[in-house]
Formats: sequence, C-alpha cells, structure tokens
Amino acid sequence: MVDYRAPLRDMRFVLYELMDGAELSKLPGYEDFTPDLIDPVLEEAAKVCEGVLHPLNRSGDEEGCTFENGVVRTPNGFIEAYQTFREGGWTSIACDPAYGGQGLPKMVNVLVEEMICSANLSFGMYPGLSHGAYVALHGHGSDELKQTYLPKLVDGTWAGTMCLTEPHCGTDLGLLRTKAVPRGDGSYALSGTKIFISAGEHDLTENIIHLVLARLPDAPKGTKGISLFVVPKFLVKDDGTLGPRNGVSCGAIEHKMGIKASATCVLNFDDATGWLVGEPHKGMRAMFAMMNAERLSVGIQGLGLAAASYQGAVAYARDRLQGRALTGAKYPDKSADPIIVHPDVRRMLLTHRAYVEGCRALAAWTANQLDVQTHHPDPVVREEAEEFVALMTPIVKALFTDLGFDATNLGMQVFGGHGYIREHGMEQYVRDCRIAQIYEGTNGIQALDLVGRKLPANAGRSLRRFFHPVAAYIEAKIEDETLGEFVQPLAKAFVRLQQATAQVARTGLANPDEAGAAATDYLRLFGLTALGFMWARMAEAALAKQGEDSDGFYKAKIATARFFADRVLPETGARFSAIMAGGKSMMAFDDAAF
Amino acid sequence: MVDYRAPLRDMRFVLYELMDGAELSKLPGYEDFTPDLIDPVLEEAAKVCEGVLHPLNRSGDEEGCTFENGVVRTPNGFIEAYQTFREGGWTSIACDPAYGGQGLPKMVNVLVEEMICSANLSFGMYPGLSHGAYVALHGHGSDELKQTYLPKLVDGTWAGTMCLTEPHCGTDLGLLRTKAVPRGDGSYALSGTKIFISAGEHDLTENIIHLVLARLPDAPKGTKGISLFVVPKFLVKDDGTLGPRNGVSCGAIEHKMGIKASATCVLNFDDATGWLVGEPHKGMRAMFAMMNAERLSVGIQGLGLAAASYQGAVAYARDRLQGRALTGAKYPDKSADPIIVHPDVRRMLLTHRAYVEGCRALAAWTANQLDVQTHHPDPVVREEAEEFVALMTPIVKALFTDLGFDATNLGMQVFGGHGYIREHGMEQYVRDCRIAQIYEGTNGIQALDLVGRKLPANAGRSLRRFFHPVAAYIEAKIEDETLGEFVQPLAKAFVRLQQATAQVARTGLANPDEAGAAATDYLRLFGLTALGFMWARMAEAALAKQGEDSDGFYKAKIATARFFADRVLPETGARFSAIMAGGKSMMAFDDAAF
Repeated sequence: MVDYRAPLRDMRFVLYELMDGAELSKLPGYEDFTPDLIDPVLEEAAKVCEGVLHPLNRSGDEEGCTFENGVVRTPNGFIEAYQTFREGGWTSIACDPAYGGQGLPKMVNVLVEEMICSANLSFGMYPGLSHGAYVALHGHGSDELKQTYLPKLVDGTWAGTMCLTEPHCGTDLGLLRTKAVPRGDGSYALSGTKIFISAGEHDLTENIIHLVLARLPDAPKGTKGISLFVVPKFLVKDDGTLGPRNGVSCGAIEHKMGIKASATCVLNFDDATGWLVGEPHKGMRAMFAMMNAERLSVGIQGLGLAAASYQGAVAYARDRLQGRALTGAKYPDKSADPIIVHPDVRRMLLTHRAYVEGCRALAAWTANQLDVQTHHPDPVVREEAEEFVALMTPIVKALFTDLGFDATNLGMQVFGGHGYIREHGMEQYVRDCRIAQIYEGTNGIQALDLVGRKLPANAGRSLRRFFHPVAAYIEAKIEDETLGEFVQPLAKAFVRLQQATAQVARTGLANPDEAGAAATDYLRLFGLTALGFMWARMAEAALAKQGEDSDGFYKAKIATARFFADRVLPETGARFSAIMAGGKSMMAFDDAAF
Repeated sequence: MVDYRAPLRDMRFVLYELMDGAELSKLPGYEDFTPDLIDPVLEEAAKVCEGVLHPLNRSGDEEGCTFENGVVRTPNGFIEAYQTFREGGWTSIACDPAYGGQGLPKMVNVLVEEMICSANLSFGMYPGLSHGAYVALHGHGSDELKQTYLPKLVDGTWAGTMCLTEPHCGTDLGLLRTKAVPRGDGSYALSGTKIFISAGEHDLTENIIHLVLARLPDAPKGTKGISLFVVPKFLVKDDGTLGPRNGVSCGAIEHKMGIKASATCVLNFDDATGWLVGEPHKGMRAMFAMMNAERLSVGIQGLGLAAASYQGAVAYARDRLQGRALTGAKYPDKSADPIIVHPDVRRMLLTHRAYVEGCRALAAWTANQLDVQTHHPDPVVREEAEEFVALMTPIVKALFTDLGFDATNLGMQVFGGHGYIREHGMEQYVRDCRIAQIYEGTNGIQALDLVGRKLPANAGRSLRRFFHPVAAYIEAKIEDETLGEFVQPLAKAFVRLQQATAQVARTGLANPDEAGAAATDYLRLFGLTALGFMWARMAEAALAKQGEDSDGFYKAKIATARFFADRVLPETGARFSAIMAGGKSMMAFDDAAF
C-alpha cells in the first residue's frame, strides 16, 4: 500500500502565506486560535490520520462491512480506531463549545477534513455523517432535543445519519412517501423505507441518531410537505441513558464500487418513534442548511483522495526504473531511468499537483468566508461572506470531485498495470472518489444549482462576490512584469467566464433548457477560472518569498503555477465554445431516438 | 443487471452505408463474403453475445476467478459458455482457412469483437489472448510449429497467451531476464517469472500455449537480445495428443479493479521446454506484429464497453421518473418526468452516443484498410493501407479506451447513486474499461508511438494516408449547403491538427522531450479530428437516405453529428493550445520537487 504523509508544509503555506490564517484570532469567538494553537492541532491530526486511519484503508476496502441478522459490522480495527479518534476529541473539533465542541475555525477544520479523507474516506464517513446530523439539530432543533442529543453527538459517544433518499426518489425529494403520524404525546410514529443511508447501522457507537425526512398526515404535496424528524436507534430515557430499541432496523447493506468500509444501508422505519425538528412542513429548509455544509465536505473528499493519490504516484514515478529519458540517460548509474524523467509522466504528475494545490487554496478561501459569515462582527460583511459561500458551494462540490476523480485516475495511470491491482491501493482511490461525484446531489445537480439559483441570486450580487475580487486583482496585477505570465491567462479565462455568464443569463431567462444545457460546462469554466485566480495569487505569494527558499518549496510553487497557466487553463476555451454553441443540438433530439 | 442488445442496425449502417462492406467480396480471398453471408454471421454473433455471454457478465465479476494449489477456476458457467462459443466456431472466424479458420474480413470481425466486449469482456479475454498467440505463431513460426499448434488454437481446443511482462519490466522489455538455454535437441529450457499474464492458467481448455519472450545465453543486451518461444502447458506428443505437464505453473492470480473473471496470472517457468519462434534475437519483431493487432482489439474493448453502457444509460434515463422538465412537465400523465427530459442528462447521453458511433465508424475504416492491406491485388495499394493502419493503431487504442472510460463513467453518472452499486452492472463497465487504458502499452506509450514513430514514418508519408483523404473531403464539401455545418467545424479542427503536427515535428526534432510533452494532447486532437471526419461522412450518408427514414434512424444520426460538431469537437481548441504551449513548464520542474 502506498504511504500517506499529511502535506503540512503546503497546508501552512495556504493558511498563513496565501490566506490570513494568523489573523483568525481577531474574529470574535476565535480569540484562542492563534498559530501556536492551530499548528499543534494540525500536527496531531496528521499523526492520527497517518498512524491510525490510513493503515486501515486498504484492509477496510478488502474486508468491507458485513451484514447479518440486521447487524452491521465494520472491518477489523475500525472500532479501536474510532475509539482513538473519539478520545482524541476529533469528533468535536468543529462543534459549538456550548455542547462540548472545540469551535475550531472552518479554515483549520477543512485541512483536518482533507487529511481524514486522504487517510481513510470510508472511516471518515461515520463522523462525517454524525456531523451532518449535528448541524441539522443544532440549527433547527428545540432546546430539549439539543440538550438530549448534541453533547453525545459532539463527543462521539453516539453517531448520526441523514435519511433522505427512498427507492423511487433521490434528487426529487418531493416524491417521498415516508409517513409521520402524531402520537398525541409530542412524538410521531414514522413508517417507510430509506435507502443509501451512509452509516445507517454499524458497531462503532452505542446509539445512532437518525435525521429523517417524512410527511405529516396533513402535508401538502411535493417538497412543501416535508418535515424533519429525529429518530434514535435506541430511545433515550429522561436521565440520558438508553432505553428500548426503536422501530428502525437495517434491511440490507449495498455492495458498492468503493467506500466499502462505509456501511450504506437500507433502513426500515416501522412505527419508529421520532420528534419533529423545526416547524412542520419546513424540513427541506433544515435539511438544506446541513446539505450545504455536506456539499463542501464532499468537495474536500475529492481533494483529499487526490492528495493521497498524488503522493503515491510521485513515489512510484521516482522508484520505478524503466527505459531511458528521450534525450539520453538522466540517471546513468541506474539500470534504467526512473519514469519521472518522461514528459508524459511529468504531465500527469503536474496536472495532479496543480489540481490538488489549487483546490486546497480555493477550499481555504471558501472556508475563510464561512468563518467570516459566522464570526465577523459586521452584519454587512457577514452577509457578503454568506453570498460568496452560497455561490462557491456547488463549485467546490462538483469541481473538486470531478478533478479528484481525474487526478486519482492519473495517479493510477502512472503505476501502469501495477495501478490496476489492489496491492498499492491506487485503484481504491479511484473507486472511493467516484461516489463523491454522485452523492449529496450529483455534479449535474450542482451545475443546475449554480446556473439556476446562485447565478441569478440577489440580482447577481452573489456572483459579484467572486467577480469583483478577481477583476480587481487582474486590473492591479496584469501589467506586473513578473506576475504577468500568470495573470494574463487568468484574464483570458475570466473574459470567457464573463461572456459565458452573460450568455447563460440571457438565453436561460428566455428558455430554462438553455441554462441547463450550459450548466456543466459553465461550472467547470467557473471552477477553472477560480483555480486560475488561486494559482496567480499563490505564485505571487511564492515570488515574494523566493529569497528564503531553502528547500525549493517556492520555486516548485511558481513552476506549478506556470504549468497550470500553460497546460490546464486552456481547457476554459473548449468549455466556452461548448457553452456558446447553445443547447439546440441536444434538445432537438427526440426522446425516442436515443 | 442492464440488458444488452447488439446494435445491428447501426453496424449495418457503418458496414454498408458508410463503408463499402457490400464490395468486400471483390477482394481476392473474400469472394464468399457477400452480405447474405455476412448478415447471418452478425446475427448469430448477436445471439451468442446476448444470450450466452452477457448473462454471465455480472456473476463473473462477483465470483471472479479462484486460485488453489496452482489451479485456476473460472466463474460458474464459463466452461459451458466457452464450449458453446467454441462449437459455434467463434474462435476460428478471424483465422486462416489453411488451419481451419473462416477467414472473415476484419471489417466484419471487428463488429463481432465489439459485441463480445460489450457482452462480457472478461470472457472475451480468453479467446482474445488465444488469437494473439495464433497471430504470432502464424506469422513467425516454422511449418512444424504451425502444424502442431495452430489447428487446435483455431478450433479453440487449446488456448494461448502472450508472456511479456516481468516484475521489474513492462514497457521497457529490454530489461527482461527470463532465460532460454538450448538443450541441443532443438528445444530450449526456459526459466523465469512472468506477471500480468492474462488467461495464463484456467479451466476452459485442455492445453494452453504460451508465447514467451526470453533471452538466449549469447543474447545482446536490451531489446535486441530478446527471442520468442512457444511453451505449451502440456507437451504435445508426435501424434498430437497431450504428453506430460511442462515446467510452467501459475504462482498466483491478481486481485484487480475489474475484468475479475479474466485470470491474470503470475507464471513461473522452471526449466520449461520451449521452441524458438522465428529467428534468435528477433522476438520483439514477432511480438510487435501481434501487439499491433492486439492494440486495435483493445481499442475495440473501449468501444464495446461504451456501447453496452450507453444502452443501460438510455434505458434508465427513460425509466427513472424524477422531477419535471425545466420548461414544465413533458409527461404530465406520469408522477414525474423521466430524467431523459433534462438537458444535462441529454448532454451525457449524446456525448456517450457520439463517442460510440464515431468510434465504431473509425474502427470500420481502419479494419477495412487492414482487409485491403492483406487482400488487395495491387502491392502499392496494400502498402498504402499498411501505412494507414500503422498510423491509426495507437490512435484507435488510446482514443477508444480513453473515450470508453469517459463514456462508461457518463453512463454510470446517469444512474446517480444506483450506478455506484453493483446491482445494475454500470460500475462494472467502468472498472472493466479502466484496464484498457493501461495494457498493451499504456495510452501514454501509444501517444509516444504516434509522435515518435508514426508521425515521422516514411518521411511523413504515413501521415498523409490520413491527411490527404480528409483534406480532399473538406475541399469537396465545405461549400455544400447542407453539409457545411458538419464540415466547417471539421475543417477548423483539421487546421489545428496540421499546425500542431508542424509544431510537434519541428520542436520534437530539436528536442525529443518537446514531442513527448505534446504527445497525449496531440493524440487526442488527432483522434477527435478523425471522429469529426467520420461524423461528417456519416451525416452525409444519412442525409442521402432521409427520404427512406421510417424509424427515424437517419434523423438521429444527423442530430448526433450536429451535437458532435457543436459540443464535442471544441475540445480540439484546448488540446491545440496545450500543445502549442510547449513542454518547458513540465520539463523545468525539478525531479526532487514533485
């Protein structure tokens, strides 16, 4: 199995040199989070991820979860690893101190999330889903519900899930059928079947708290009649101890392409007792608050897997001796040159690297704006940050997972035939990454969210939260002698993005199918432009530090920025042309002719 | 599991309406192959693939092969299916009548190959490898060896393999270590270890004939010291019956991402008895003849899997009810619209379709030139055809498998979460397809072959075998009123290809790393242009038949051509820009800095 070492050097660059991570403690509520607290957190996270989670990644994939008589068992070692994880406080880092959480800034937490996903995505699903349940309850539950459930979700004694999908409805939740009938005592009886429930049943915790979408008897049709309920696996007694088993059971687990150590469950609710979270018929709103957080996290999954795959690919490319460089032996003392000398191998590695470091930077910017959104004293600044985050959420989710899938495939390709066999774990990264393009809203749905909701939101004001800083940066730097080589290609991509935005807004207004036809290419064009902005800014930060470059870190950063501008950013031209061609050729095709 | 129906209507279009399949019988040796013989062959092949091979595709993936005490067992049903396949004469269709083969034209055979790969790639590996061994022996073996082995390879009583790779050498065969020591009786004693040997051991046939690369004691270093040997699993007695077990054994089978029903073996040769095939130290030449045939076949694997995946995706997109069309309900009588109404789903399906039908047409053109190369009476015409085939071989291999992988991923994406679970078999197409980008020379190696060997071959004459017909077609049709919309985008792509060719030739001459840096993007640009040519010609053929379009076949063909020109071909612009940026940004990066 390939090794994993948390890329702490690059994370610190992003946190402190590209972004203002050292200033986080100026935000109210973040006073403690100075670098001398943040750095040890990152270092400890690295230790747990490298030493505890990653060693179980391949064995977890090979064993998978097992299901017998309604009981789900996680692979060997997962129970002990979860115990270590929990005792280390890692389930609580991103949670509200009022419930025992550590209130870590999102900009730091996103780096920890990346490490967990790199080390063992399947493992990360369990605390990840718990956190989703935590967010929904924290945001919308009554005080009583919060007091009952949050402390144990936060300290990881209990886990959580989100139960949305049913056999006949995924994207279109308006079709859902699970019923919730009031019992008259403040509780509800839930009945129905949910599928694809990650962490729906397992042996890591003593209780599992399900957040379930269901319909009340008087519910209007469609998404306006959906309510949110909390349904624990074991009922909780008044003293907080566990009572009898509730009417929810696991009917089966899915056999999947990847994330095999994450139990994906069919859950049957049979007169299960639940309590309403938030108002009746307003479940979608509560769920969406949580889903937006989840979508960012899924983007990080793509980044994390790509980062892990990159390390494996580089190590193999250095190690594997095969043939000689096209220009003559570069390592004449060896029986052959390592394959890293070959331009096409370098193309794969640099593409991989440019994706990973670009996405890490964009993730940090988005996370920073989340911190501003929740902690800045000025409500205007908070609102602007919220608009930015809403805009970037579908982009981070879809772009990072698409690039993550491409990157893990490049990593595997570097290994040749050795990448296709299980031994090194490279093909596992590919299989594990593939789901991230699908769940929490397929990437096609993300693209529709971008063009259909986010682009027109607030009369285009949300869009300007990205456009304005980019335009200002280009204007300020395009004439700069050293930065020009990075800013000029960015400017070209940005012009394409602006023109495509105008086209999508104009044609989409007249015919929504036109916006839909452009959506995927538009999201990619937007995302690549955002990465271009990050790369220009990273080049700028690295150029400023060239004098203190003892280990070649800044030189490599600048060289990667150059590669990105030269060889990756041109893709924006193709995406632009496809968008400008419009949707006629796809909408004119007869349904019956496919 | 999704269904598979051989796309016979489209195959006949390619064979008889786009190409001159009805004229095949005019070539010497092909006199019998008139449509009234070809059509039943295709129909029978469809029956076997749909009814015998495809039903074992998913179960074969789930069971995989097993290895115990040196014995490899194929999944349940494979032995019986192989028996049916063999008795139907399918192992012999592409073989020389002198050894019991049916001598089917390549243009027909390529369609049968596609069906087999669509139905069950793992199964197809067994006869596929046998055919590789047949080609090497047929081309280079002595009469005695041919009489001993070919008839039973042809009728499928025995199977074959190709043993190239060793643990430390794949691409760079010059490093190989397997030894062959003359015994003095005309035979050789072979010792060494080979890995990744597809069909290296199994229970489908009574004998397995290994074609093995090894070094004679006096061999020069590198690839000039490699000889080819035939090494049967069971020695063959003079009367043709089987003698004792030879010194070759299976040490393990690999656990792979996909093609799990195809046994990928570690083979240990321990004083195994073999016979020289061809001249000493000329093994690479013999192996390459076979590998070129194999590379085309691997390309067809990508096409076949994409074709199967397309059918699954369309069926699901018609069946899955979810949400409503963006412009209002299109199927108001249903609880929701089928997802085929959504532009982004149509984008995925049409991209998938455009890849499949474009590749099928390009495969037919290449196969047709193979038929001309082997059967045309005029040696000049034969040589021209050979040049064309040599040029297109790396393109077919790499382009079809890259597009096949993209297409199977699109097919899976259409299924959403249901695509990620094993049930429908969509994720299996993705996993099975992934190896085709790697084996028989990774796609990066194909790209290097194109820029390094094929582009400069015969002072550019090979290249002109493609450039001349395309240039002539564009010149003849670009002013055509109805064809213009297809030919103008093709002309744009072709100009890019010509300019990129000039750049790669010029810079590559001065610095081979420049050619290497451009290779992958160049191959893709070339391939997309070739598909653009195919699509323009298909549109032309369909336009000519619009009057007799009772089932909308021609209308759909024209609409797909339009989508390809509009939404797929623009990718050539991005590839062109990346090529023109040169290789500096990737070669300047320090090896140690990755």
